[in-house]
Amino acid sequence: MEKFPQFVVFLVAAAFLGSLSVVLVLFWVLHWKGGLAWDQGLLEFNWHPVLSVIGLIFISGFGVIIYRLPWTWNRSKTLMKYIHAGLNIVTFVLLVISLVAVFDFHNSKKIPNMYSLHSWVGLAAVIMHTLQIVLGLCTFLLPCTPTFIKTLYMSVHVGVGLFIFGMSVTAAEMGITEKLIFSLRPGSNTTLPYSQSPPEAILVNTLGVFILLFGGCILWIATRPEWKRPPASIKESVGSEEGSILNKTNVSAETNNENVAEGTARSTPLNLEDVGQRSTF
Amino acid sequence: MEKFPQFVVFLVAAAFLGSLSVVLVLFWVLHWKGGLAWDQGLLEFNWHPVLSVIGLIFISGFGVIIYRLPWTWNRSKTLMKYIHAGLNIVTFVLLVISLVAVFDFHNSKKIPNMYSLHSWVGLAAVIMHTLQIVLGLCTFLLPCTPTFIKTLYMSVHVGVGLFIFGMSVTAAEMGITEKLIFSLRPGSNTTLPYSQSPPEAILVNTLGVFILLFGGCILWIATRPEWKRPPASIKESVGSEEGSILNKTNVSAETNNENVAEGTARSTPLNLEDVGQRSTF
Repeated sequence: MEKFPQFVVFLVAAAFLGSLSVVLVLFWVLHWKGGLAWDQGLLEFNWHPVLSVIGLIFISGFGVIIYRLPWTWNRSKTLMKYIHAGLNIVTFVLLVISLVAVFDFHNSKKIPNMYSLHSWVGLAAVIMHTLQIVLGLCTFLLPCTPTFIKTLYMSVHVGVGLFIFGMSVTAAEMGITEKLIFSLRPGSNTTLPYSQSPPEAILVNTLGVFILLFGGCILWIATRPEWKRPPASIKESVGSEEGSILNKTNVSAETNNENVAEGTARSTPLNLEDVGQRSTF
Repeated sequence: MEKFPQFVVFLVAAAFLGSLSVVLVLFWVLHWKGGLAWDQGLLEFNWHPVLSVIGLIFISGFGVIIYRLPWTWNRSKTLMKYIHAGLNIVTFVLLVISLVAVFDFHNSKKIPNMYSLHSWVGLAAVIMHTLQIVLGLCTFLLPCTPTFIKTLYMSVHVGVGLFIFGMSVTAAEMGITEKLIFSLRPGSNTTLPYSQSPPEAILVNTLGVFILLFGGCILWIATRPEWKRPPASIKESVGSEEGSILNKTNVSAETNNENVAEGTARSTPLNLEDVGQRSTF
C-alpha cells in the first residue's frame, strides 16, 4: 500500500477520536444528564445521542472504510461485503431505537417533532442509510442481480454513502448545539447557562470537535485513491512485485471462492471484483 | 475529461444550490430580520450570516474546485493559482467583516463570545483558512520556495483545505440552528416559535439543506481522481488522442510560460506542474 504510514496515522486517529467520542457521550448522559432509562422522560431521550453517536458516527464510520483496511485485502471480498452490510445493519437497529426514544420523549412532553434543521438532516440521513442497505443488499449480495446494474449503481452507492456519513456528522453537531441550548438555558436548574461555559458545555463542545475530526479522518481515508482495495486481478502482481502484506495464496483462494460464490456472473467480461472494490471510493 | 456529463451535472447543481443559498440568506435578513446596518444591534449581526454564506460557503467552495474546471485547463497554471488565491483572499476579507459584526453585536449587548460549538468550529475554520492563504502564498507563489517544500506541503494544503470547507458547512448548519432557536423562541415578538414551524423556519431550514447539498457537490467534484486537472506533460497527449477540449497550442504556451515563470525549479526532476495540480485533490 502506497503511503502506508500516513494511512496508519489516519486510522489510529480515527479509532482514537471515535472511541473518545463514544466515551464522552456516555460520560455526558451518565454524569450530567441523569443516566439512561425508558421512562418517556429525559432519561429516555438520553438514548438518542448515545445510540446515534455509537451507530451513525462510530460504527457507520468504520463501515465506510472497512474495504480500505489493508489487513483485509487477503480476505474474500464477499466476506468483506457481509461485514460492511452487517455494520450498517447494526447501525440501522441502533438508529431505530434512537429515533423511537426521541419521538417517544417528544410525544409524551407534547413537544412537536421534525421542526428543526437537525431533525430534517438527521431523519434524511437515517432514511437514506436504510435505503442504502436495502439497495446495497439487493444489488451487491443477490447473485441474480445483473452485472450492468451492479456497475451502474456502484458510483451512486459510494457517493451517496459518503454523503450520508457527512450528513450524519453535521446532524450530530447540530444535535449537540440544540441540546446544549435547550438544557443549559438561563433559569434552568443547572448551575450556569451555556453562555457562561460551564464544564458540561466545554465537555460536550469537545465531543463535537472530536466527532468532526473523526468525520474528517474517515472521509479522508475513504477518498484517497492510493488506499483503495486493489482488484483481485492486480493484488497478485502487487504481492509478487513488492513483497507487500498481501498473501498471494489467500488471494488466489479468495478469487476461486468468489468465482464459485458469484456463479455465472463471474464469467462476464466485466470483473465483478473490480465493481465491488469501488464501493468505498 | 472522463465522465464529463456527470461533472457538468454536479457543477450546475453546485452553481444552482450555491446561488440559491446566497439568495435565501439575503431574503432571510432583508425580509424577516430587518435588513442590514452597522448599528451594533441585530441589523449589524445580520452581516454575519450573509457574509459567511457568500464568503466561506459560496466563494470558498468554488475556490476549492477552480482547478477542476476543464475549461481552464488550457490556461496557465500560474494564472489559476492567482485566481485560487484571489478567491480565498476575498473570502478572508468578507470573513473579517463578518466576525467584526458578530463580536461588535455581542459586546454591545453584553453577550459572551466563543462559548458555543458553532463559534469554536467557525472561528477554527476562519483561522485555518487564513493560515492556508499565508502558507499557500509562501509555498506555491513565492518563486524562491524549494521544490521539496512544495511537494511536502501539497498534500497537507489539499487535505486541510477540504477539511476547512467541510468545517465551514458544518459551522453554517450550527449557526442556522442557533439563530433560529434564539430568534424564534417562545415569547419573542414573532408570530410563531421555531417549534411551530413558521414560514421563516421553513425557509431557513431549506437554506441549511441547500448549503449541505452544495457542500456535498463541491467535495464530490474535488475528490474524484478522474476530474483532476491533468499535468502539462499529459495534457498534450490527451488532446491529440481524444480531440478533447484542450487546446494543444495553449497548453504548449502554458508550459513554456511556466518554465520561464518558475525559473530553475522547472529543471528539477520533479514536475512542478504535477505538484501544483494536486492542489485540489
